Amino acid sequence: MSPASRYTYLGPEGTFTEAALHTLPEAATRQLTPMVSVPAALDAVRSGEAQAAFVPIENSVEGGVTATLDELASGTPLMIYREVLLPIAFALLVRPGTALGDVKTVTGHPVAQPQVRGWLGANLPDALWESAASNADGARLVQEGRYDAAFAGEFAAATYGLEPLVTDIHDAENAVTRFVLVGRPARPAAPTGADKTSAVFWLRTDHPGALLEVLQEFAARGVNMMRIESRPTGEGIGRYCFSVDCEGHVQDRRVGDVLMGLKRACREVRFLGSYPRADEQAPTLREGTADGDFVAAADWLTRCLDGRG
Amino acid sequence: MSPASRYTYLGPEGTFTEAALHTLPEAATRQLTPMVSVPAALDAVRSGEAQAAFVPIENSVEGGVTATLDELASGTPLMIYREVLLPIAFALLVRPGTALGDVKTVTGHPVAQPQVRGWLGANLPDALWESAASNADGARLVQEGRYDAAFAGEFAAATYGLEPLVTDIHDAENAVTRFVLVGRPARPAAPTGADKTSAVFWLRTDHPGALLEVLQEFAARGVNMMRIESRPTGEGIGRYCFSVDCEGHVQDRRVGDVLMGLKRACREVRFLGSYPRADEQAPTLREGTADGDFVAAADWLTRCLDGRG
Amino acid sequence: MSPASRYTYLGPEGTFTEAALHTLPEAATRQLTPMVSVPAALDAVRSGEAQAAFVPIENSVEGGVTATLDELASGTPLMIYREVLLPIAFALLVRPGTALGDVKTVTGHPVAQPQVRGWLGANLPDALWESAASNADGARLVQEGRYDAAFAGEFAAATYGLEPLVTDIHDAENAVTRFVLVGRPARPAAPTGADKTSAVFWLRTDHPGALLEVLQEFAARGVNMMRIESRPTGEGIGRYCFSVDCEGHVQDRRVGDVLMGLKRACREVRFLGSYPRADEQAPTLREGTADGDFVAAADWLTRCLDGRG
Amino acid sequence: MSPASRYTYLGPEGTFTEAALHTLPEAATRQLTPMVSVPAALDAVRSGEAQAAFVPIENSVEGGVTATLDELASGTPLMIYREVLLPIAFALLVRPGTALGDVKTVTGHPVAQPQVRGWLGANLPDALWESAASNADGARLVQEGRYDAAFAGEFAAATYGLEPLVTDIHDAENAVTRFVLVGRPARPAAPTGADKTSAVFWLRTDHPGALLEVLQEFAARGVNMMRIESRPTGEGIGRYCFSVDCEGHVQDRRVGDVLMGLKRACREVRFLGSYPRADEQAPTLREGTADGDFVAAADWLTRCLDGRG
Repeated sequence: MSPASRYTYLGPEGTFTEAALHTLPEAATRQLTPMVSVPAALDAVRSGEAQAAFVPIENSVEGGVTATLDELASGTPLMIYREVLLPIAFALLVRPGTALGDVKTVTGHPVAQPQVRGWLGANLPDALWESAASNADGARLVQEGRYDAAFAGEFAAATYGLEPLVTDIHDAENAVTRFVLVGRPARPAAPTGADKTSAVFWLRTDHPGALLEVLQEFAARGVNMMRIESRPTGEGIGRYCFSVDCEGHVQDRRVGDVLMGLKRACREVRFLGSYPRADEQAPTLREGTADGDFVAAADWLTRCLDGRG
Repeated sequence: MSPASRYTYLGPEGTFTEAALHTLPEAATRQLTPMVSVPAALDAVRSGEAQAAFVPIENSVEGGVTATLDELASGTPLMIYREVLLPIAFALLVRPGTALGDVKTVTGHPVAQPQVRGWLGANLPDALWESAASNADGARLVQEGRYDAAFAGEFAAATYGLEPLVTDIHDAENAVTRFVLVGRPARPAAPTGADKTSAVFWLRTDHPGALLEVLQEFAARGVNMMRIESRPTGEGIGRYCFSVDCEGHVQDRRVGDVLMGLKRACREVRFLGSYPRADEQAPTLREGTADGDFVAAADWLTRCLDGRG
Repeated sequence: MSPASRYTYLGPEGTFTEAALHTLPEAATRQLTPMVSVPAALDAVRSGEAQAAFVPIENSVEGGVTATLDELASGTPLMIYREVLLPIAFALLVRPGTALGDVKTVTGHPVAQPQVRGWLGANLPDALWESAASNADGARLVQEGRYDAAFAGEFAAATYGLEPLVTDIHDAENAVTRFVLVGRPARPAAPTGADKTSAVFWLRTDHPGALLEVLQEFAARGVNMMRIESRPTGEGIGRYCFSVDCEGHVQDRRVGDVLMGLKRACREVRFLGSYPRADEQAPTLREGTADGDFVAAADWLTRCLDGRG
Repeated sequence: MSPASRYTYLGPEGTFTEAALHTLPEAATRQLTPMVSVPAALDAVRSGEAQAAFVPIENSVEGGVTATLDELASGTPLMIYREVLLPIAFALLVRPGTALGDVKTVTGHPVAQPQVRGWLGANLPDALWESAASNADGARLVQEGRYDAAFAGEFAAATYGLEPLVTDIHDAENAVTRFVLVGRPARPAAPTGADKTSAVFWLRTDHPGALLEVLQEFAARGVNMMRIESRPTGEGIGRYCFSVDCEGHVQDRRVGDVLMGLKRACREVRFLGSYPRADEQAPTLREGTADGDFVAAADWLTRCLDGRG
């Protein structure tokens, strides 16, 4: 298969990432290659060995996936083309025949632990937890007999010859992980009316209110900021860049105007793409911020410049 | 003489307005016609009977000249092309031979009174003040013997056969009146590097912070607002429009961007012109707000839209 | 009568000011003394010769009454205790027997003219206008036969032996004048739930955004600013102070907090009083800005300081 | 030893956390107990088994330590009393006699890897990396012969009978980790003049500009925000709380005023303490925000309320 038909993803097989990837229709026609890390998945895109990479970017319990945020903020530019939201619920996978009373040792990815801690305390208070490299890896270790049970997606059971003893385990209501499909920069897909735009910006100075000024670029155009995450720039404590998502598409005049405002107000801005919102919610538009308002204002300015204001 | 060569001004002859008008070099080649009121002076421009009108707009002691502000905000649009600042100092004009001790009655324009009240209290505490229709009219009434002395510009003495008994009278230090030359809308003169832009805007709503939002359009682009004056819209108590001057020229990208922001955020905006500052002071430019920064941001946005961000 | 029972007002008798004053119940028990000017009316209060002065402060057509604004902003401090809103409609007063066709000359206060200009153009296009010192003075001059008709309040007809030929004349819908009752500083009346607070502030600097920062003190506490008027400080063109009214009472915690914010942010602030709104409209309260929220926040801070946060 | 004399810290022994803890003078007189995780270290404080816990909160390369941020934001309240900044430089620890050419396998904490990746690529391009549970654990595994070398602090060499083959390894200039000493809530230490205040807040709503409004509480009082980190609340994608540090001490009036503003504007605020800045840098104070300005404004408001404004 050619690189153009390959998608990499954060492996191994049998994780939530792979399950989320399969919700994308185009995944059916691509070669899907698991990679050992987010940087590895993205580097395959940068080098041209893959068309796109599918990686987690944010979890409603654990927060931003820093490897993804930092990779998108540095190195050869990449762009986000799709997002997927996957509700996260764990199954307790065991070898066939195991009863709950038999479970003395459990494993799973370290990130899974805080999401099942409550359930463990209530149902298996004496079970010993040890972390595995991934949820899928935990399932494999149960298959091999190293542990009695593993927390993983229910879909992983078949792959490892296990059975889901308990399903739908999640301490937090609405635990969701957000994944993004990342490719090399290209013209963003056309607006759908329910889009999201991502960017990273570096403040020009540390003066009190510098972040405030930048946020006002959004507020002044009524553009709702949906996510803001500070990340260290590596230049020392107190030096951050900010990764943000906002409502709307770069082709929306108000969003383009916000981006130009950021560009002028910041030391650096990196555009990370405009893509359809997974929740398909259209934004509410503040009066005076529709495309027509921007066009009308630009026309009016032209008339003012010509003495026909 | 053709209308193209006529300037109207707020009369009568012999006032500070006429003196200020004579500081404009082009006044020497125009027919200068005094008018009885600001509306009359401006209506002559609107109807095409005059090329331009010269009227006071602001006084550092008395504030905005409401007739001028309101005429510019309503009716057929007009534009400001020049401004003149004239220090205001009064002379006490008397008939030849009159000594200070002889002055029992004084006159002058009502606006002059608060500017000479202190001097009167100290030097002519018993003199009786009566208002005249203009400072020049006051001088005429002294010539006719109706009053002993008139406060007027020293330049008015000769016209009325009077003598300046005392000169340079002004209670406030730095009393200055600002005048503007107003014409029909046309392409503004080219930027000089030290320009001023005037506009009137009507807020869309009365919600708390509506004015604040509009002022942020200026602040976000580092454009200094030099004057703000609220005027009633005539729609009832609490309904205002705002007349503003800011630093810079409509051709400056940051100023154009502010105006477009106003246009989108307001119910209505009226552009009143960009013209050289009388004080010739160049503005200080905040980082990221020069024309080059706007061009660079627009170029960058184009690249983002094309997938070359 | 003692000074304690005397109210001065901007005279002469027979004007809208006097009519407005009579809408205050306490006016019935006071000696009402007309004065020749706003400063004269207020100086009588400052000197103790009168308990209070009743003066116009704002007109929905003509804007702020600068004499009142400037007097309140300077000199010995005064405070506003009451406001009155009076709809302004003119009557055309004539000597008994005069028909509309007989009216060749009309008079009235200069401020009245723009408010009847439209009516005049439509009904008496050829009548000659000359200004009088006040509307009441105009009525007197008609009585004396100097003019054929005067624009004045209908209530002035009887005083001068005239008849209202036409009533309810006003070019602008909802023309209203706002009057205030001004006294020496004292504890403001208790909050009514629908109050207004007035102040004047002088910006500390001229930097871009200085006014914006001050307005944010209002916005941050959800306090609606109802009027803002810039007035020259007398220090030169471009130097202003700002006269403002906002919703609420100085005893409302959010209003007190705004005032303290102004005090810190400004070169100078002058508190001009809290008093019942003439329109009796209660403000809408933004979440988190009620008195209880301020008390709760202060209690919480105390606990934080004590280590019980 | 009594609980009052015990400090827990994020173990095991021999890590940078322990090295940072030893820079605190009081550590010399405390029993120092390593714990397996941040929650374990903090729970010992909550339960009264330890007086304080010493844990990492932020790394200039890797960002916020989410376990610490989330523990401080939830559960029984805790407070920060001290901070320590430790420059992070790694040593390559080997068994005595090992030469650089002999190193085929290396280990270390996963967080260490991105900080030494560049060095590895340049100096040991063929060495195989495997992660260890901690840097100290990596050193132990080298001692046991499982790996040829471990990245760890130079101070860990002696403990495990290893030798630092190379020292001062760090890809990023100025790599620093910030640690905090956390205890049960109590009155904060007195201000030193160079203090920091930490808090967590939950926005009341998701409306565009909600974060902006909160940041304005800081900006309005000239209080510099030094760190802002968004963390998921666990209520779903797009729901965040914000962990912030700002300059100043809760006893500084401007900081207390900011905190009260947050309390009113937010759904919830948690005060996390005021403590001396490790860098001992005093903040610059904006005009009008000193304690004296707050006292003066409060006094003035009292006078206004009393009618002596």
